[in-house]
Amino acid sequence: MKKIFDVLLAHNEFKAEAFVREIDGKKPLFVCTIATTETAKIPGISAAGKYPEFTDYTPPADAELLLLGKCKCIAGVPVTPDGIPTPALITMSALRLADIPVLVASGGLKVKPQIPFLDLGGNPGKDIRTGNAVDDVEEVIQRATIAGENLTKTADYLVIGESIPGGTTTALGVLSAMGVNAEGKVSSSMPENPHQLKTETVRAGLSASGESFGSLAKNPVKAISCLGDPMIPAFAGLVVGAATQVPVLMAGGTQMSAVLAVVNALNADVLCNVAIGTTRWVISDRSSDLKGIVAQVSDVPILAADIDFGPSRFEGLKAYEKGIVKEGVGAGGAAIAAMAKLGGAVTKDMLLKEIERNYALLMETK
Amino acid sequence: MKKIFDVLLAHNEFKAEAFVREIDGKKPLFVCTIATTETAKIPGISAAGKYPEFTDYTPPADAELLLLGKCKCIAGVPVTPDGIPTPALITMSALRLADIPVLVASGGLKVKPQIPFLDLGGNPGKDIRTGNAVDDVEEVIQRATIAGENLTKTADYLVIGESIPGGTTTALGVLSAMGVNAEGKVSSSMPENPHQLKTETVRAGLSASGESFGSLAKNPVKAISCLGDPMIPAFAGLVVGAATQVPVLMAGGTQMSAVLAVVNALNADVLCNVAIGTTRWVISDRSSDLKGIVAQVSDVPILAADIDFGPSRFEGLKAYEKGIVKEGVGAGGAAIAAMAKLGGAVTKDMLLKEIERNYALLMETK
Repeated sequence: MKKIFDVLLAHNEFKAEAFVREIDGKKPLFVCTIATTETAKIPGISAAGKYPEFTDYTPPADAELLLLGKCKCIAGVPVTPDGIPTPALITMSALRLADIPVLVASGGLKVKPQIPFLDLGGNPGKDIRTGNAVDDVEEVIQRATIAGENLTKTADYLVIGESIPGGTTTALGVLSAMGVNAEGKVSSSMPENPHQLKTETVRAGLSASGESFGSLAKNPVKAISCLGDPMIPAFAGLVVGAATQVPVLMAGGTQMSAVLAVVNALNADVLCNVAIGTTRWVISDRSSDLKGIVAQVSDVPILAADIDFGPSRFEGLKAYEKGIVKEGVGAGGAAIAAMAKLGGAVTKDMLLKEIERNYALLMETK
Repeated sequence: MKKIFDVLLAHNEFKAEAFVREIDGKKPLFVCTIATTETAKIPGISAAGKYPEFTDYTPPADAELLLLGKCKCIAGVPVTPDGIPTPALITMSALRLADIPVLVASGGLKVKPQIPFLDLGGNPGKDIRTGNAVDDVEEVIQRATIAGENLTKTADYLVIGESIPGGTTTALGVLSAMGVNAEGKVSSSMPENPHQLKTETVRAGLSASGESFGSLAKNPVKAISCLGDPMIPAFAGLVVGAATQVPVLMAGGTQMSAVLAVVNALNADVLCNVAIGTTRWVISDRSSDLKGIVAQVSDVPILAADIDFGPSRFEGLKAYEKGIVKEGVGAGGAAIAAMAKLGGAVTKDMLLKEIERNYALLMETK
């Protein structure tokens, strides 16, 4: 697979290369959209926390880590049940290496982060099995669009990431309602991807809302309201507002395909200014299929940070090579932006060293 | 008084000139800090609303006007009892003329604006006569400092304004607690400045808190907690965080002297990067004395936008020449930034025409 710097051109190679050339040497703003959903508390669906209630703390803790270099609302940092650290560690390290500014935006939270954050007016999400998952979707999209329009004046381009436990299930929900076949294709942060459980959860939600596969293909607002999560309208609005003016790198894994479907339905024209940025772990994952979902929606390019934790001294980081965690908090996109901002001066090796340094510091203070 | 573009060098001329030269052609970010306080509801103290409860709506309505070009939480725009429109009209017109991005930051609000805004974790303020006016001052300062540090990476310099009814009384409160003699010197948006009422209110607050003039000279956090408002810690934290890196134009009238006293006590070093930007109406006001207060605190320069509503066709704007309203929502600083950003290509005449156009549009839709 062709690379520029340590960025893999993973899909739609010519457009991918053009995107990297366009952001080379430019100054981005990283926006982290955070939200929570009760869907994450369905047993077995998310690895974002050891205990279901912990999923309420993961997004604010991730956001605090990005801005402060440490968490405030929890001790230590978010970890999987096996003790594998949050991908926010990658994001934070990448952003600091390249001195990229961060803005945290909330789509709807149960627990607020103890840092400054942009309030977009949303509420925490409900369990999608109710078929009534997210309030005020249209209003949040509108406010996020205004925010996106304004933020374009403060940066050459935007990198937008997300932190929401349970997000691949709600992504599957929105994709299914919009007629995109994603069953068995969304990713998981766990070593065993619980596809069956996700599919059953989404089908229960479709049934409860009186909808069916593809019935909301032209109604992204209702698709989110019934089966989505509060991160999606915040993220989609930011893309719609910003990508009319500047390039936007949508930083994430398979959840990005749900945001893409929503943006495509809201304003397909802006997608000529959009790429997805993820990690090598997502691209090489055999239990999910990001390209297969994206190709059904729009021909945006996919870039992947060629991060490699194989050489790491730390077991907690090596685990990423076994397919645990893989992506999140815009880790891949932040790494790509860090590499591109300094024209390749940030390499995958440097990034790993910085991640190891921060990991060691954070484990010490835990 | 010497001018550069249509900017008056109102105080500390050499430093003022150096500041204008430094921001000439540079790209600013305008941050509007908003908050509410029960102090504004003391009868006779504020002109920000016809009815005391209306003061809860003025800051969110001002913020909406800046971002959307119209208000959402109220019909029309905020006006004084005589129907004189909010200075946010000036700010909005200036920012749009020069395409300057806006970020709204909340220090603590009773009514939230229906737009994206930065939440800094604060609560609405209480009546300073209780001697216990603002919660969590230290935490808000810390969060605002982090926000300020990050925002410096998105702009060449910051212009920070405020909207809080009753703000000159709480400013007098903080100044008095910190030993700055400001009695009879703070400004008012009303034609008759109720100095006696402000002084009595502050004295009641000092007494209730067990403090006296100057007793909190070295404790700005407690001075705000006892006698301030929630805008002040948000504003001061932004200045402290940003001015270590980039120039900061503190946009406002006599309230800025209270923020200045707080910043001076928190980190006096940053003040070499700070100027106050206001309007000609504040500088020529005989019922207040901005320079007289500032000179007691620090030798920062004062710039004043040479705005003149004398030639206006609209009575609502002409009233500004009689000393009504005078300043607010960073109107003077926004005008200065608009003039400086385009190297003087935005003149006072152009600004008045744009303000008149927006005024006519807003009156139409009311």
